[in-house]
Amino acid sequence: MNIVVQNIERAEPAIIKALGECGVATVHEAQGRKGLLAAYMRPIYSGAQMAASAVTISAPPGDNWMIHVAVEQVAKGDALVLAPTSPCQDGYFGELLATSLVARGGKGLIIDAGVRDVRDLTAMGFPVWSKAICAQGTVKETLGSVNVPVVCAGALIDPGDIIVADDDGVCVVRRQEAASVLTKAKARVAAEEEKRRRLASGELGLDMYNMRGRLAEKGLKYV
Amino acid sequence: MNIVVQNIERAEPAIIKALGECGVATVHEAQGRKGLLAAYMRPIYSGAQMAASAVTISAPPGDNWMIHVAVEQVAKGDALVLAPTSPCQDGYFGELLATSLVARGGKGLIIDAGVRDVRDLTAMGFPVWSKAICAQGTVKETLGSVNVPVVCAGALIDPGDIIVADDDGVCVVRRQEAASVLTKAKARVAAEEEKRRRLASGELGLDMYNMRGRLAEKGLKYV
Amino acid sequence: MNIVVQNIERAEPAIIKALGECGVATVHEAQGRKGLLAAYMRPIYSGAQMAASAVTISAPPGDNWMIHVAVEQVAKGDALVLAPTSPCQDGYFGELLATSLVARGGKGLIIDAGVRDVRDLTAMGFPVWSKAICAQGTVKETLGSVNVPVVCAGALIDPGDIIVADDDGVCVVRRQEAASVLTKAKARVAAEEEKRRRLASGELGLDMYNMRGRLAEKGLKYV
Amino acid sequence: MNIVVQNIERAEPAIIKALGECGVATVHEAQGRKGLLAAYMRPIYSGAQMAASAVTISAPPGDNWMIHVAVEQVAKGDALVLAPTSPCQDGYFGELLATSLVARGGKGLIIDAGVRDVRDLTAMGFPVWSKAICAQGTVKETLGSVNVPVVCAGALIDPGDIIVADDDGVCVVRRQEAASVLTKAKARVAAEEEKRRRLASGELGLDMYNMRGRLAEKGLKYV
Amino acid sequence: MNIVVQNIERAEPAIIKALGECGVATVHEAQGRKGLLAAYMRPIYSGAQMAASAVTISAPPGDNWMIHVAVEQVAKGDALVLAPTSPCQDGYFGELLATSLVARGGKGLIIDAGVRDVRDLTAMGFPVWSKAICAQGTVKETLGSVNVPVVCAGALIDPGDIIVADDDGVCVVRRQEAASVLTKAKARVAAEEEKRRRLASGELGLDMYNMRGRLAEKGLKYV
Amino acid sequence: MNIVVQNIERAEPAIIKALGECGVATVHEAQGRKGLLAAYMRPIYSGAQMAASAVTISAPPGDNWMIHVAVEQVAKGDALVLAPTSPCQDGYFGELLATSLVARGGKGLIIDAGVRDVRDLTAMGFPVWSKAICAQGTVKETLGSVNVPVVCAGALIDPGDIIVADDDGVCVVRRQEAASVLTKAKARVAAEEEKRRRLASGELGLDMYNMRGRLAEKGLKYV
Repeated sequence: MNIVVQNIERAEPAIIKALGECGVATVHEAQGRKGLLAAYMRPIYSGAQMAASAVTISAPPGDNWMIHVAVEQVAKGDALVLAPTSPCQDGYFGELLATSLVARGGKGLIIDAGVRDVRDLTAMGFPVWSKAICAQGTVKETLGSVNVPVVCAGALIDPGDIIVADDDGVCVVRRQEAASVLTKAKARVAAEEEKRRRLASGELGLDMYNMRGRLAEKGLKYV
Repeated sequence: MNIVVQNIERAEPAIIKALGECGVATVHEAQGRKGLLAAYMRPIYSGAQMAASAVTISAPPGDNWMIHVAVEQVAKGDALVLAPTSPCQDGYFGELLATSLVARGGKGLIIDAGVRDVRDLTAMGFPVWSKAICAQGTVKETLGSVNVPVVCAGALIDPGDIIVADDDGVCVVRRQEAASVLTKAKARVAAEEEKRRRLASGELGLDMYNMRGRLAEKGLKYV
Repeated sequence: MNIVVQNIERAEPAIIKALGECGVATVHEAQGRKGLLAAYMRPIYSGAQMAASAVTISAPPGDNWMIHVAVEQVAKGDALVLAPTSPCQDGYFGELLATSLVARGGKGLIIDAGVRDVRDLTAMGFPVWSKAICAQGTVKETLGSVNVPVVCAGALIDPGDIIVADDDGVCVVRRQEAASVLTKAKARVAAEEEKRRRLASGELGLDMYNMRGRLAEKGLKYV
Repeated sequence: MNIVVQNIERAEPAIIKALGECGVATVHEAQGRKGLLAAYMRPIYSGAQMAASAVTISAPPGDNWMIHVAVEQVAKGDALVLAPTSPCQDGYFGELLATSLVARGGKGLIIDAGVRDVRDLTAMGFPVWSKAICAQGTVKETLGSVNVPVVCAGALIDPGDIIVADDDGVCVVRRQEAASVLTKAKARVAAEEEKRRRLASGELGLDMYNMRGRLAEKGLKYV
Repeated sequence: MNIVVQNIERAEPAIIKALGECGVATVHEAQGRKGLLAAYMRPIYSGAQMAASAVTISAPPGDNWMIHVAVEQVAKGDALVLAPTSPCQDGYFGELLATSLVARGGKGLIIDAGVRDVRDLTAMGFPVWSKAICAQGTVKETLGSVNVPVVCAGALIDPGDIIVADDDGVCVVRRQEAASVLTKAKARVAAEEEKRRRLASGELGLDMYNMRGRLAEKGLKYV
Repeated sequence: MNIVVQNIERAEPAIIKALGECGVATVHEAQGRKGLLAAYMRPIYSGAQMAASAVTISAPPGDNWMIHVAVEQVAKGDALVLAPTSPCQDGYFGELLATSLVARGGKGLIIDAGVRDVRDLTAMGFPVWSKAICAQGTVKETLGSVNVPVVCAGALIDPGDIIVADDDGVCVVRRQEAASVLTKAKARVAAEEEKRRRLASGELGLDMYNMRGRLAEKGLKYV
């Protein structure tokens, strides 16, 4: 029942990188407002940004054994994504594991639980989005699985899906949809440039988006 | 039932500015410990400070249409204050809306819901106090109202009331009471200067405030 | 029933300092994963660090009178540890009290409630770990006790116990166990140096910790 | 600053009674979806129902002195509505106070804090909607006010407003709007009778409310 | 992007019924401790029990339009499973919708949001497991989807999956695994009968499960 | 480090029983408002009542092995008190363990985590106060300790302390103080009888407790 899937497919690095440049809010809009993890997932330091391919971990509460197993499955450009099998805020991950992950080419961590050594991780520039910061350690007694589908902070994540994360939160893009989402995201970025210019010049959104008629129709009264 | 009030009264800019200089904790004390919004309202960056006149928004959950309507009502020195009609943490507001608001002279946002594009907003120096940071977008389908009384994060706010906000949270001062609260706040600031000097020299609050007698009377025992 | 204990024993300053250098996560592990305060206790600014001897306060909700009493009991190198008798997030403590505490040689505050004036406290470099930041003030009407055992954020703390706090949270070390915990903590720090080197070179935790056999025994399948 | 307002206006008993018979959900709809208290306000026993005129209390955290003051202001058919000045879950109210309130003609309690003796209160048939059940007692040291406007669980309540409460929660109706809200609520009750009959017979809401056209227009696809 | 899937596969009624008789805790164990919804999903009345085939709904916050669409898709023995696209506790569902659902053969509701008219629903014996009870109504302005995969209270649910719910919470069983899970669940029920008898006679779990050796090996000391 | 203390002292059964008859609120007041567990500890059914001697368990998150160990240490009239070493809401305990506990003379369970099989436990009349109801099972892999001091839901509990629990929550009485707390609790019960009679007759608490003078002195104004 506890397995490690060793061969997973990944999206092209160039697509992953480009999605990251669009940012979480834009990517989330571009894919129809889906894939966002719960808002309690916060970066351990301001300005953290990451786009990576997911290596997923399903782990028991208070047990980080499977992280060690997962590190071996990491390829360059991957991030770990850990979902506990029941709610937990223990500190599953710290600076030693980050050192190991970086040595294997890993880029960061998404964890629906706790993390510790955040001062060191910040100094390393190692980005983590977590539910909690907590010094409480974990044991290595019970198996979990690596590279199976997980529900992490309310979002379904398959191994090889793309994780985009920044100060606004964390969003997952299905691997199969990555190219088409990127196309839409780039179109949004381009369109926003023009809107920004017009709004900065004092034009109202009410006029730019032609909202006045529909507002009147719905019954809005100015008094 | 859904209205936009176009003419609201505002306090004098000089009073608003001076209240801001006193800070939230002092203003809150000066007006008899009332008007504080819930402590979950946090600034999106450390050091954010604002004093402004409120343009209020009552908005449906997950629908930011009324923000576009409110921007047109903004005068120089105003801040938007948004209260959803049921609890919501969606990201109603981002960098494009901030660009528009700034172009109209707006100063910031108080929102009992979520905000996004926080990296951009921080770079712009645009202050926001919110319940959440969340990339989840909103729709534009349902009406709300602008410049009606709202209960925002547990505090009643009328349009034209003064909002004072900093790292300690957010406080509302009734427009009608602004001048008298300012007088009391300034008196507190002056008095604190002298207290600070005495405490820094090692004098105890127990002595400076003459507490020993009352403590003994109440029955405190030293063992 | 309400007492102030005036003479408490403290650990040696050198031991307290050395525990602080090990950090919360290491100290917590070294003493067998006990003594951690709840993860909701967060520093008011990033990078805050403290190791100090506890002066404890049991205070009523929304009443900070006992802090004034406690300041008089502070010796050089002490931190205040406040536990309310029922859950409360009011701002019991601000810049004036910090000024007074520093003048008496105090080092910081651990409070299972709220704090205010956080901009000023940050500017002073005065570290606080709290449950909330809140401008809501308190009264001085009801007695509590100073230097009695308290349960603060889920951990039992006796006066004179050692508080170690940093970005990972807050941990208490019993005064009687301080020396032995320090010995174990130092051993961990030394051992981690070697592990860090090996992991940085690309060696896997799976191999370094000899986990493969036990994983297979428990039934982990690679597919 | 702390006052007791002795003469307040109340709605007609017949209107209050009739609003109660409509129930919270219907009344809330009838007045345009406003006036609902936060959903964390729950009855202490299933099936509790109440419609009453509000006597409001603004009380300090952990201090129930003002309840004793308020009891004297209670007329037949009133309910107490208590809002603490900062969040608190202490048990402000128990069986002795309920006995006193009932002796004065009081009907129940709405409290954005805690209550205790719930077994006795249930046996008495005394309805309470509260944020918490908590045996933690309170003191009588600090003043508050009686019959002033309060924000209770997120809703503004003036003395003399009508409180309607049942298993669905608590709703406030402005005294001045009571008659018109009642008219609308009764119309809803009547209309629902017919809808219930049609739905029970198997007719779909899609057809009864003529939704199919608008759904298609918005772009819903059946696959 | 918003779709209604009209033809979904369902498990055999006999299997669904039998899973329900095993109960949530047993089914959850039998399928390897997966599929449990978050513990905040609570029945609106004690003793509620349900086993049903899922008709899923993805709905916007505060908008229950899609429930009307979903009712048409319900076959005898189905339950509705609603997941909002962002967190919401509004009362999406009440007695009229329940009347309609029952008329179509529906059995109950699982909703990661709010429900209202709970007194009426209880009187009807209509079971609901929800995140909240809330009288706050919803609008009918924005589309969602019906019979698409949803993440509800942290669990992935496909249309046609089996929902088992009782006082212990809610568990989802994949349609494809229903038969094999039932086999394992029945085996557990049978085995528990014998264990219950032995434990009731005073035999210790320590002996019945042969735990003493392994406890000693791990280092447990009796003092 | 993981131990089972086999011989603990207990209070006299008659004292435990009498404390139970006073109820949680009264006992809590009688011992000076200390010893109350957090208000999130709720009984699994209304009307549950218990007074018992504590057998304490410190258990890892998601691991109920130590409950089996603890059952052997139970004497007639004991209750289990379980505190996890980090926050957890898994269902550690169900009907089989209750059957075993009852066979050994055990009376109930206090658990700062989750419980399951609540329908069966209710049918058995087996009282549990817990933080959560949750079907999520646990493993048996990691040691904890039995009959050591624990902090459970914010209260320090030593083995042999007396647990009093009812609908108002859970309170712990130190074994050494049981007799004196009982004396005070009985005095309160007697005094309340007279107060209840006077309040029921319409006398005001303001008069019965002589509050008018002190209220005026503090500055309360009647308007």
